[in-house]
Amino acid sequence: MKKHLPLLLLFLSAVFTWFIPHSEQLTPEAWHLFVIFIFSVIAVILNILPIITASLFALAFSLLTNALTPKAAFAGFGEDFILLIVMAFLIARGVIKSGLGKRIAFLIIERFGKTSLGLAYSLIAADLLIAPAFPSNTARSGVLFPLVNSLAHDSDSKVADGTRKKLGAYLMMSSMAGLTLSSALWLSAMAANPVGVAIAKEFGVVISYGSWFLGAIMPISILFILIPLLLYKIYPPQIKATPDAPAIAREALNKMGRVGKNEWIMGFIFLSMVSLWALSGALGINKTAVAALGLALLMAADIFTIEDMKHEGLALETFVWFAILYSMSIQLGELGFMSYLGGAISHAIGGLSWQSTYLLLVLLYVLIHYFFVSQSAHMLALFGLFLEVGIHAGVPGELLALMLLFATNFNAIITPQGSSANVIYIGSGYITPLEVYRIGGAVTLLNTFVFLSIGTFWVLFLF
Amino acid sequence: MKKHLPLLLLFLSAVFTWFIPHSEQLTPEAWHLFVIFIFSVIAVILNILPIITASLFALAFSLLTNALTPKAAFAGFGEDFILLIVMAFLIARGVIKSGLGKRIAFLIIERFGKTSLGLAYSLIAADLLIAPAFPSNTARSGVLFPLVNSLAHDSDSKVADGTRKKLGAYLMMSSMAGLTLSSALWLSAMAANPVGVAIAKEFGVVISYGSWFLGAIMPISILFILIPLLLYKIYPPQIKATPDAPAIAREALNKMGRVGKNEWIMGFIFLSMVSLWALSGALGINKTAVAALGLALLMAADIFTIEDMKHEGLALETFVWFAILYSMSIQLGELGFMSYLGGAISHAIGGLSWQSTYLLLVLLYVLIHYFFVSQSAHMLALFGLFLEVGIHAGVPGELLALMLLFATNFNAIITPQGSSANVIYIGSGYITPLEVYRIGGAVTLLNTFVFLSIGTFWVLFLF
Repeated sequence: MKKHLPLLLLFLSAVFTWFIPHSEQLTPEAWHLFVIFIFSVIAVILNILPIITASLFALAFSLLTNALTPKAAFAGFGEDFILLIVMAFLIARGVIKSGLGKRIAFLIIERFGKTSLGLAYSLIAADLLIAPAFPSNTARSGVLFPLVNSLAHDSDSKVADGTRKKLGAYLMMSSMAGLTLSSALWLSAMAANPVGVAIAKEFGVVISYGSWFLGAIMPISILFILIPLLLYKIYPPQIKATPDAPAIAREALNKMGRVGKNEWIMGFIFLSMVSLWALSGALGINKTAVAALGLALLMAADIFTIEDMKHEGLALETFVWFAILYSMSIQLGELGFMSYLGGAISHAIGGLSWQSTYLLLVLLYVLIHYFFVSQSAHMLALFGLFLEVGIHAGVPGELLALMLLFATNFNAIITPQGSSANVIYIGSGYITPLEVYRIGGAVTLLNTFVFLSIGTFWVLFLF
Repeated sequence: MKKHLPLLLLFLSAVFTWFIPHSEQLTPEAWHLFVIFIFSVIAVILNILPIITASLFALAFSLLTNALTPKAAFAGFGEDFILLIVMAFLIARGVIKSGLGKRIAFLIIERFGKTSLGLAYSLIAADLLIAPAFPSNTARSGVLFPLVNSLAHDSDSKVADGTRKKLGAYLMMSSMAGLTLSSALWLSAMAANPVGVAIAKEFGVVISYGSWFLGAIMPISILFILIPLLLYKIYPPQIKATPDAPAIAREALNKMGRVGKNEWIMGFIFLSMVSLWALSGALGINKTAVAALGLALLMAADIFTIEDMKHEGLALETFVWFAILYSMSIQLGELGFMSYLGGAISHAIGGLSWQSTYLLLVLLYVLIHYFFVSQSAHMLALFGLFLEVGIHAGVPGELLALMLLFATNFNAIITPQGSSANVIYIGSGYITPLEVYRIGGAVTLLNTFVFLSIGTFWVLFLF
């Protein structure tokens, strides 16, 4: 019963908030949906409910109170990028099972495995380098995740036996944080980036592939150095120095011998998938279809089997909570809540100097991501609005546009649902949603600080 | 390699069929989607691929060839009744885990457990009796399934240790077959039934609650007796007579002692859910919202835990293949394939006597269910068309209307995807999709035979 007291208090607070008089600009549905959404998030942050339970309650309440229509409430389940996450997750199991994951992990350990820190740096570096070819950070996490997962597994850090914190949790969080950097570094590294550039153009702000990269390279170089160190402090791996690891990896590689049949098949399927994902925009191919084909081939080749599928309940759990929160967040936008919030903010900060306006706008843009379950939705809902408010107050257009677009990416780790890339990592069980709120929040703080300080001066110096 | 030869042959046949010249009334997309759909079904029937693999291939091919748009291909995942299946499935685990399932199972065994046959009869009888209060056979299967599952578990017939055929498989198949009867017996036992009655009215055929029941009671009484016997022959349980079971159950009940806390909570949640499901139509409540609330409460009460969720990969598998096949079947309708098929049939059977027309129409209506992944979609697509053709050829309207509406229900076990009720049983692993094609096909044959013979004379005699 003790455990259920905070739940009861939270529920009563939600009921109380429900009946607070709200602005007339908001429909009752918008207000009610907001109350349900925000209290679900609070339940997770305060560790009162696991994210799946909070999401199921949110779904039930918003349907039973007609804050959501069934069609809108279940729309997220039919979003292809969410299914891409689920399938990429299952494919990652195939990478491990085939033995290919083990081999690549050993090759990385042989090279960089003397310290956990070295492994984290090598993972993020790899991400930064492949990012320009991946116009979707979801697809990119589908490539990186199996690697990180294999590295953890083969360092005897597993979820099932309670050793996730030995190494796996640290590496997963590092790679998740790395994705915020790789997506912010290249115009072509995240689906919404080019859309943002197009919107900026409507305000007379022209951002080229080169100017984006130049603007981002300085703060991101600094963050590339700082983030693994920060996580090493606040989310430390239990294994730190592993001086013998490279030798052990070399031995293990020798023992593994030549590349086996399943590894060849897995490697072929995986490389084909990666190529098709990278070319999907140009060829007009659906990324989820590519993943479905890859998974079907893995199953036909008995690399990922029906028997394996039975143990993938976490993929279902992740699918369900993410789809629910995504649907709710999209509806908050549709019902006008997001633009109301944006309008209220722009009203509140009127009359300040452009420097203060700039700082406040970027800070608020970052924090508002607590409400969004998609980087693209956030950008589409608020980027134009914030840009207009800022330019109107005298903030240099290029500076503000670049910084808001960078922020669209570097704030992605602020919540578990903040990016679909996060979801695939959390689905592994190595990282809990609550840890993302805490540790991911700290990373977002560091990202924001570096971008707003050094990043701002760098952009002003450049252009 | 040997294993992959049939797959290659099937693939080549599909490619060949793809390029066969087809009627100009069909768009290329409709033809292509049909080819992909039908060859996926064949792959499962011939045991070349498991249903999940076949479905993933079908999804990938239909997207990559533009036979389906992404929106249409993924629509099934956002259908609330499909999510209802997933949630009902997880809730059923809670029924077992709480101990309540065990207790009720023992009570049933104590009463009817001397033979496996007796258990099968008692399950179907229970279904027939509760059916009029459940306007959704999906929701009803959500009530029955946990019971059947508990009965199997507590008779030491489990999926994990390879003993599913001892008793569980037989009981599950019996209950699935029973659902075809209970849905056909009452106008209010399946969502599409009242819709069909409304359509019939447009043709001047008035069907009342009473005339529906009277028309169905005779063939269904006979099938109620025959079906458990048929399954006993062709899909026998390994345990047949269990003369000591009632005594053992009584002893186990004594050992269980008084109803525990978790059982009370589970019982309360379950009864509330069942009541809300039964009243959902009248109160305008979304059934899936009710299930989500029930599941969330079970999780908050630690009856169904995150740890349990990890092992529910089969629920994910079932969700994925069913949603894919459902989306494809709906699109076959949208693209005009179904009405083309109906038109071709009515054209082909023109000029026959009304008796032959009647027989052919009902038989075709039953067989066409191979293409449908929803009883409602089947009824909506073809009932009116078939009724028109038949009445035009002189078939008595009331006879044909009743029989086609009965068939909408009694053909539901012809394929694994033929009814959402099937899906929840198959998701347990006790029954394989291939077995449904074989054994469910035999049950459908028996259903059709009894309805077309005795059922026809009975209806003609009555009205």
